[in-house]
Amino acid sequence: MAVTLKDVAKLAGVSRSAVSRTYTDGASVSDKTRKKVEKAARELGYRPSLIARSLATNRTKLIGLIANNFQNPIFLEVFDLYTRALQKRGLRPLIVNLTDETDPEHSVQMLRQYNVDGVIVATSTLRPYFAKAFKDANMPVVHAFGRAEVGTDVHVVGIDNQACGKMAAETLLLHGYERIAFLGGPESATSTQDRATGFLGHLRDQGVVPVDVRYADAYGYQAGRDAMREVLKVEGVEAVFCGDDLICMGAMDETRQKGIRVPDDIGFIGFNDMAMAQWQAYNLTTVRQPTHDIILSSIDLVATLVEEPEKSLELRIFPCEVVERGTLRPLSQ
Amino acid sequence: MAVTLKDVAKLAGVSRSAVSRTYTDGASVSDKTRKKVEKAARELGYRPSLIARSLATNRTKLIGLIANNFQNPIFLEVFDLYTRALQKRGLRPLIVNLTDETDPEHSVQMLRQYNVDGVIVATSTLRPYFAKAFKDANMPVVHAFGRAEVGTDVHVVGIDNQACGKMAAETLLLHGYERIAFLGGPESATSTQDRATGFLGHLRDQGVVPVDVRYADAYGYQAGRDAMREVLKVEGVEAVFCGDDLICMGAMDETRQKGIRVPDDIGFIGFNDMAMAQWQAYNLTTVRQPTHDIILSSIDLVATLVEEPEKSLELRIFPCEVVERGTLRPLSQ
Repeated sequence: MAVTLKDVAKLAGVSRSAVSRTYTDGASVSDKTRKKVEKAARELGYRPSLIARSLATNRTKLIGLIANNFQNPIFLEVFDLYTRALQKRGLRPLIVNLTDETDPEHSVQMLRQYNVDGVIVATSTLRPYFAKAFKDANMPVVHAFGRAEVGTDVHVVGIDNQACGKMAAETLLLHGYERIAFLGGPESATSTQDRATGFLGHLRDQGVVPVDVRYADAYGYQAGRDAMREVLKVEGVEAVFCGDDLICMGAMDETRQKGIRVPDDIGFIGFNDMAMAQWQAYNLTTVRQPTHDIILSSIDLVATLVEEPEKSLELRIFPCEVVERGTLRPLSQ
Repeated sequence: MAVTLKDVAKLAGVSRSAVSRTYTDGASVSDKTRKKVEKAARELGYRPSLIARSLATNRTKLIGLIANNFQNPIFLEVFDLYTRALQKRGLRPLIVNLTDETDPEHSVQMLRQYNVDGVIVATSTLRPYFAKAFKDANMPVVHAFGRAEVGTDVHVVGIDNQACGKMAAETLLLHGYERIAFLGGPESATSTQDRATGFLGHLRDQGVVPVDVRYADAYGYQAGRDAMREVLKVEGVEAVFCGDDLICMGAMDETRQKGIRVPDDIGFIGFNDMAMAQWQAYNLTTVRQPTHDIILSSIDLVATLVEEPEKSLELRIFPCEVVERGTLRPLSQ
């Protein structure tokens, strides 16, 4: 027979309310009472459970957090902020790492099994399958770092990658560059596609023909090095816009290892402004994505959706800004 | 009245077993049946729950994962490996970020409330409070990256930081360095203390007096830069052993920004071999910590403890190795 809260209260010689408070997040209970309760619970094999209570309230306070870019240092900031901000609201992230996942249905099923209150998908590309699966399961879902487009069937918090790609083009033209290359992330990522559209579109509008347009295999350091090796085969490249900071760091290292100076011979502008962009060895000029705002807003939105699942679809877009450091030639030049 | 599996089966026109299989991890069910079940579940407001079943089995398949070093890129690898390796075993990490936590009891209480099957603490220093609190709550706990010492009251998987610190000293002496500085991590961390003991002890045994012994405020890039600024005030430093790779990258950047060449003027050896140690801008010689082995072993151990809570205490120690790259002068010199 299952041990109940009442049994524990009796053995501990305390009120049922005291047992309940011992196991309630943030409730007040004296150390002495807590110790009595825990001792009795141990003797009886009682395992208190928020989970058990969730059957009555239909709330687990678990938020599924789906990601697949664990190799990219930007994820450190993303993950630190998510866990802290969720905790402050009394929520807990249940992480799903999609890296090895060949069958996305498996992840969706798992999140259903844990009765998560909501889901945040933190990847730039949301496979259409997920959006539909969560919808079918009546699970509120927010796509953080998602595509800024009207007409999707999930809530999106992120940036306008086209507008931010355009900022990179404006910056390079402002610095007087003419022979410009684009070194994007994976061509299949919507974030890459949008940055390319904004960047290349603005160059075209200004009558500038890019000397090279190329895509790295991944948002990664080595992928950046490998792709830059090809860009360097083009004669007279003056500046490169990289799909993200990590690609940019790889591209810079490949360039410098060949004895080509940055920014004297070739200038670079990245994307994201991850913590390492400030490191002296790179000191990278980059388009800053407001990671902090996107994360806090996506948590706020998913928490709202838990209470109001029928809320109409939202698209929350935050602006980017250019952070000038040391990888472009001076403006006066 | 609660909606039952039977109600769902009836409305969907399928067997109860089919409903059960729809919500069982890895069980086989046709797409057609799944769709019928999900439709009926939605109409009835049925929320299937592994959690509910956990009340009967007393297993939630949740593993608490406690960490506080989210700013250090080594955590990217740690976290990626943990989530994937746990998933492969059908387990899920419930993450606790201790960064903001002023009251550790709060975290322990939370993990109890979610009935986690076990806990992995992945920080170099385990506050004694935690070990006791988990023990009191009958929760199996494994301290990953913990101190290699006999007589603790938790299971430990990690390295022998003294032996690995000694390897750094041996390497510097082998390269012919004589004027050697130690730039450790925070002095309060047991990992720092043990690396210092091994490193400085071996220098002493070999009759070498370190020219400087200093501690950074954190395992961080900026902390490394700040501490290196002080080390550089010492006349004629030839080589530095840094408490970890991130500190070492900061120290190298501070050094090079002053026009001092690495390794021509000053050599560096780091600790960890995080992914970025290979980046060309650093190309860091370092003592490699077998992160992968430590993580897989700690998951294996906690899973065993869930089945055998009374298992006697284990100390699992993995060896380090020196990875020679480009930050020490050549051996022949």
